[in-house]
Amino acid sequence: MKIITSVADMAGTCLQSRHSGKTIGFVPTMGFLHEGHRSLIRLARSRVDIVVVSIFVNPTQFGPGEDFDRYPRDMVRDTGLCAGEGVDILFCPEVRDMYAEGCSVSVEEGHISHSLCGLSRPGHFSGVLTVVAKLLNIVRPDVAVFGQKDAQQCRLVQQMIHDLNFQVELIAGPTVREADGLAMSSRNVYLSEEARRDAVCVPLALGLARQLYEAGTRDALDIKDRMKTLIGKYSLARIDYVEILDRARWKPVETLEGPGLVAIAVKVGSVRLIDNITIGAAVVPPESLPQPLRQ
Amino acid sequence: MKIITSVADMAGTCLQSRHSGKTIGFVPTMGFLHEGHRSLIRLARSRVDIVVVSIFVNPTQFGPGEDFDRYPRDMVRDTGLCAGEGVDILFCPEVRDMYAEGCSVSVEEGHISHSLCGLSRPGHFSGVLTVVAKLLNIVRPDVAVFGQKDAQQCRLVQQMIHDLNFQVELIAGPTVREADGLAMSSRNVYLSEEARRDAVCVPLALGLARQLYEAGTRDALDIKDRMKTLIGKYSLARIDYVEILDRARWKPVETLEGPGLVAIAVKVGSVRLIDNITIGAAVVPPESLPQPLRQ
Repeated sequence: MKIITSVADMAGTCLQSRHSGKTIGFVPTMGFLHEGHRSLIRLARSRVDIVVVSIFVNPTQFGPGEDFDRYPRDMVRDTGLCAGEGVDILFCPEVRDMYAEGCSVSVEEGHISHSLCGLSRPGHFSGVLTVVAKLLNIVRPDVAVFGQKDAQQCRLVQQMIHDLNFQVELIAGPTVREADGLAMSSRNVYLSEEARRDAVCVPLALGLARQLYEAGTRDALDIKDRMKTLIGKYSLARIDYVEILDRARWKPVETLEGPGLVAIAVKVGSVRLIDNITIGAAVVPPESLPQPLRQ
Repeated sequence: MKIITSVADMAGTCLQSRHSGKTIGFVPTMGFLHEGHRSLIRLARSRVDIVVVSIFVNPTQFGPGEDFDRYPRDMVRDTGLCAGEGVDILFCPEVRDMYAEGCSVSVEEGHISHSLCGLSRPGHFSGVLTVVAKLLNIVRPDVAVFGQKDAQQCRLVQQMIHDLNFQVELIAGPTVREADGLAMSSRNVYLSEEARRDAVCVPLALGLARQLYEAGTRDALDIKDRMKTLIGKYSLARIDYVEILDRARWKPVETLEGPGLVAIAVKVGSVRLIDNITIGAAVVPPESLPQPLRQ
């Protein structure tokens, strides 16, 4: 496995690989890798000749007072995991190489980014789209793999790829969960013991939404109210949003007709957790959520 | 010469050329080609294996009340000029293929775009950068050639290429001028006979700036005042801006030290003309400006 830190070296290496006719799969991460990342790497591995993983904690997607400085890092473990998965190139650029002094260009989105996490994290998705555009231009992959856990990010990157004509296929990898249903996330490491216990309210609320849908409920307000009531029983949980969107138009729905995205953000103790599921889709995503009945 | 109208076909064709090891040079235009465009095509031709010219009158860079609908078009003549110059691919996409319904992503710039033409044409440079990003992603050229006549556009595209890590070299082609010094522009066709006569004030004012600089004047305000006085003598001319910027920092200067960009926008009759020269640079751009003394 080659480890590259220079942006210019990375671009040059990928260009060479392309010229030799090899296909490139790209998994951009912020490091502190877990089983969720491992599944994305395996998805890429199954599709292309050369797998590139980037580890870059991107400062421009963190707001003031957010956790950029204390975001968890473990390069030794991450390197081991990547090597173990047969990653070909690990790209770990420095902030000063990614953002030269006087940078003034960004990628903005005017619809999807103004909902859900965009409301409580102003500027976050501009930071995400800009760094993803940069990474796509440096790596020029055939396939890029993102985690469906960050549903809004996935959708925004898909929108950017479409609107700016990036020649890459986006694959959204299914969410990988702990035994109790909690979605894997690098930020889970922040959870205190008590908060970790209460964090189960997030997958439980999503499981409840699916259960209600499968029992015939189509009233989104009703489903959201019952999810909120469930979360309200957990003393460390503070709801940021509980929303049900029409997946295609990315607009809140009153009555579920087509595929709906049930998306949650809950602060449990000091940690903001996000999660989502799709309901009403022809194909049920391959995730196993806990049943609320097990409470 | 191949003529391609489909975005997907264009992307596929360029990908194939790249795989065969050929280098691509790209000249994006809005059509109604003139000697200025011809010189840009020749610049590209001298550098690469495959020359791609695009003709696309981009609606998103025109403001309400601007001249999108009446922008001059002549596909037959343009096709002939390109074929005559040995262009390999002429790319003429349709608006609905470039901008699908529901597009919501744009490229924005927060410093350079807020000066000069950005002040009188809000949204213009966002439209320019977004369409250039799209075209660069579709064509993936090794070299892209823009006209230095649009100095601010050149600089913004250069900034975008740098900030978003596009793997392309930008070449700014020197301005081509009519016998009296007027910079070639597709919009010159709008000029009435009287306005065409008065339009000479633009290159004359730039020539005066150079003459003053070469005679030792370093006071930018003094130079600008004398340029404005010159332009004021032409009854059909209305100044939008006369500015002298530090080229590197893109900030107005009081005293010329390093290379300065002298930039003008003047409405002559109903036509807005822009032009610029660099003064104080080690290498004088290969343009011939008329001498004000010839008046």
